[in-house]
Amino acid sequence: MNARQHSLSEGALYTDMYELTMAQLFYRMGMHEMKVHFEHFFRKYPDYGSHQAGYCINAGLEWFVDWLKSVRFTKDDLDCLRGQKRRSGEQMFADDFLKWLSKQSPMEGFTVQAVPEGRVVHPDVPLTVIQGPFAMAQIMETSLLNRLNFQTLIATKAARVREAGCRRLMIEFGLRRAQDRGGNASTRAALIGGADFSSNAGMSCALGYPPKGTHAHSMIQAFMALGEGELSAFRAYADIYPDDCLLLVDTINTLESGVPNAIKVFEELRKKGHEPVGIRLDSGDLAHLAIQAAKMLNDAGFEDTVILLSNQLDEMVVWQIISQIREEAGRYGMDADHLINRLAYGVGTRLVTSRGQGALDGVYKLTAVEKNSRWIPALKLSETPEKIINPGFKHVWRVYNGRNHATVDLLGLQDEDPEQMEPLELRHPTDRETWRIIGKNNIGRIEPLLVDIVRDGEMAYEPESIEEMRKRRDHDLDRLDPGVKRLVNPHIYHVSLTPKLWNLKRDLIKKKGNGIIL
Amino acid sequence: MNARQHSLSEGALYTDMYELTMAQLFYRMGMHEMKVHFEHFFRKYPDYGSHQAGYCINAGLEWFVDWLKSVRFTKDDLDCLRGQKRRSGEQMFADDFLKWLSKQSPMEGFTVQAVPEGRVVHPDVPLTVIQGPFAMAQIMETSLLNRLNFQTLIATKAARVREAGCRRLMIEFGLRRAQDRGGNASTRAALIGGADFSSNAGMSCALGYPPKGTHAHSMIQAFMALGEGELSAFRAYADIYPDDCLLLVDTINTLESGVPNAIKVFEELRKKGHEPVGIRLDSGDLAHLAIQAAKMLNDAGFEDTVILLSNQLDEMVVWQIISQIREEAGRYGMDADHLINRLAYGVGTRLVTSRGQGALDGVYKLTAVEKNSRWIPALKLSETPEKIINPGFKHVWRVYNGRNHATVDLLGLQDEDPEQMEPLELRHPTDRETWRIIGKNNIGRIEPLLVDIVRDGEMAYEPESIEEMRKRRDHDLDRLDPGVKRLVNPHIYHVSLTPKLWNLKRDLIKKKGNGIIL
Repeated sequence: MNARQHSLSEGALYTDMYELTMAQLFYRMGMHEMKVHFEHFFRKYPDYGSHQAGYCINAGLEWFVDWLKSVRFTKDDLDCLRGQKRRSGEQMFADDFLKWLSKQSPMEGFTVQAVPEGRVVHPDVPLTVIQGPFAMAQIMETSLLNRLNFQTLIATKAARVREAGCRRLMIEFGLRRAQDRGGNASTRAALIGGADFSSNAGMSCALGYPPKGTHAHSMIQAFMALGEGELSAFRAYADIYPDDCLLLVDTINTLESGVPNAIKVFEELRKKGHEPVGIRLDSGDLAHLAIQAAKMLNDAGFEDTVILLSNQLDEMVVWQIISQIREEAGRYGMDADHLINRLAYGVGTRLVTSRGQGALDGVYKLTAVEKNSRWIPALKLSETPEKIINPGFKHVWRVYNGRNHATVDLLGLQDEDPEQMEPLELRHPTDRETWRIIGKNNIGRIEPLLVDIVRDGEMAYEPESIEEMRKRRDHDLDRLDPGVKRLVNPHIYHVSLTPKLWNLKRDLIKKKGNGIIL
Repeated sequence: MNARQHSLSEGALYTDMYELTMAQLFYRMGMHEMKVHFEHFFRKYPDYGSHQAGYCINAGLEWFVDWLKSVRFTKDDLDCLRGQKRRSGEQMFADDFLKWLSKQSPMEGFTVQAVPEGRVVHPDVPLTVIQGPFAMAQIMETSLLNRLNFQTLIATKAARVREAGCRRLMIEFGLRRAQDRGGNASTRAALIGGADFSSNAGMSCALGYPPKGTHAHSMIQAFMALGEGELSAFRAYADIYPDDCLLLVDTINTLESGVPNAIKVFEELRKKGHEPVGIRLDSGDLAHLAIQAAKMLNDAGFEDTVILLSNQLDEMVVWQIISQIREEAGRYGMDADHLINRLAYGVGTRLVTSRGQGALDGVYKLTAVEKNSRWIPALKLSETPEKIINPGFKHVWRVYNGRNHATVDLLGLQDEDPEQMEPLELRHPTDRETWRIIGKNNIGRIEPLLVDIVRDGEMAYEPESIEEMRKRRDHDLDRLDPGVKRLVNPHIYHVSLTPKLWNLKRDLIKKKGNGIIL
């Protein structure tokens, strides 16, 4: 891509064509500056085939905000739109509309609220709420979904791998199999969701983390082709990185060549006053090889070296490795917990592609329009009741129980306050027969989830560090029931409506629902 | 991301950390300018779970070449590297190495060959061949794999969807569920592999294609919230886009509301002298709804309108829709072929995430190093024979049979010429018992697959249009046996070695293979 292609494809035209054709229609109908309310939420947790997540980790907001702050229709963007033709040969977009577009700044007239990055989030809960003029609110849909869907997907996968790996050191390794520059978004999301570090040199530097990595098979191969062996290659590496020596031991044969050679080099290092870091296993039966390699390292006096595992890891593979070690370690006189605590994980392809579920189904739905200074709730019907949106201009609260565990995310209307509701009545979003009552004494705390991002056209968002997001993530994860965090078949976390919102939804459906009854 | 973060994360540091630590090692050992030979290839066709591809469409090369042309280590890149610390607290990268890096331009001293974009390609065939100084050849690994793996994956999926849809009009719709700016790579790859157009406004403009799209449910919803109905919304759209009127008919109820309202508006349009484009179905039983909607449109005199289908389409869903129409159309007095010919497909999430297989397993392996002006083949062993690389500095030819069908991709050594081999002996890459002989009279043509991209440090690549790549794709697809193109359980296309390459591989393994025997 040349510079012009870059600028065209990442600026204001980073959107779907229909957003622009609709925007022109709204302009033509005089609806373009009508205030509307859109909500972004996802409908289902990622389902990786044999196992579905019980929570997600919200991520991607800052990159959407960056786009929002900087984007303008440039002359080149407008020229491209001017060049689009109708079937009749006329301009698709008329000059008056293009002139209007050229004056738009996407924050003007907008109020944006969002759930901060790093938080645990659940389906049907508005994660980003956009209120502002119709045409621009429509145009920003694609960019918003593109930024938030993907990073939330990857942060969620990263959190699952980290939980499966007992929160031991985890490094994201996926750039080579990632989606072109989407790989940079993966790196960021992985760092928010669960990875401690990444191999991605540029993105790590940009975010202030040291990139991590050691060496590849090609280094050993080159030494071999030149008539030297694995041992010479290891020695060369140890010579140059004496305090950071982590050796890849599977180029020839892990237990017969790699580990013995690594131990030789580690002994030489120690004599010179350096402590080795450890070894990396990248093929074969990782659990079995980790036990055997650990035994050899222990016998040689290197009990504290790291054993970094890689090769198509994801949460299920990591879980399996740990289970196998727990079962098998004792048979070789090894302490399973000690071994598990020295493991680290290099997680690549399956993390950055969210193996099993490559997309989050986040949507952006119109929930209200303003007419004569009054908000009118909008409805999107569907023959599947779960796909009928929750209408209106809403608030979101997280309710904690007496043990300070999150027990429900509650959606209500803008003028409601659950602190004033006694008892708290929680309605199932689609099933009229299902509700729950919580008395005041079973409620520890009620917390609003949305924070201001743009307030009346002014940016209210301060860029945050990844560390802040990680703190939020751990704080939220520690307040989830273990059943919700389970890798397979998790408990379903409740997302409920206030009775007032429930009644609004039911009445609207009754009025416009073409026979659909909740 | 701010401008600095952009530049750090997309330039020379768009690589894995270990490429840089290895580069420093090569520098320190005096190996950094040693000439080496790396080959990029993939090992397996994408396997989408229940069905595996029988071919891939090569894509992504130009974006790698663009990176190669423009990339330099900037002062900021070098400062970031200078800031990386060892565990001892010293600089990870020494100043002399950083100074050397600052002078590198990645094309200097390189020869790069590649298979052009749009071509049908197969496993184990070198698709990109890099020859040049070791350190820089190592550093470019990540960027090369990142660009080529992903676009080849998506172009392949797009080709399959297009074949499943009988090559009818196909539009890529995936940006909102794509991987941040990886979505732009998806758009490009989809256009190369099978999509006729994309909804991605910016990337389409950048590549010179008109972006396509109509309107969303939100337009109808807004009219409904304001007390108007679907019909008013359709009328408004038809008014503004009288010659480009394609209406989304499933917001309320497809057959009871959407299609009848669309027909009303189409009749009004026709009275005014405009021909409608068609309708879009985005939910429900698409095959059944397409038949019913077509019947209603035909009865109203709109036999030629397009019926655009969308909603989680991929090659299997499209295949199923077409099969169902073939079975069911007659029952309603409809001609299946006529209906299939008026269908078009909007393909989003499942295309841009390559549903079922989210990554191509492309690798970049050292196959030879130069010592004393002689090329020494390098080997990467594995206990899995299929993962042992084909060593040495190779050529690739495609052999066509008398019917002008591609019959085998043949790998041989640099000094070989299959035109001179009589008969042609084709060895299986790993199974010593399997070979095939083709006599001269069964060979139509032998075609070298690799073309020069960089010749002795000079760019030899001319940017190509997507149209050229598409021509190549169709040319190659038309020369594949139908069995190889089958969606499920395809014939395995042969990739073979010349006897000389086979013998080299066998001898090297015997010498260094730790007991592995081919």
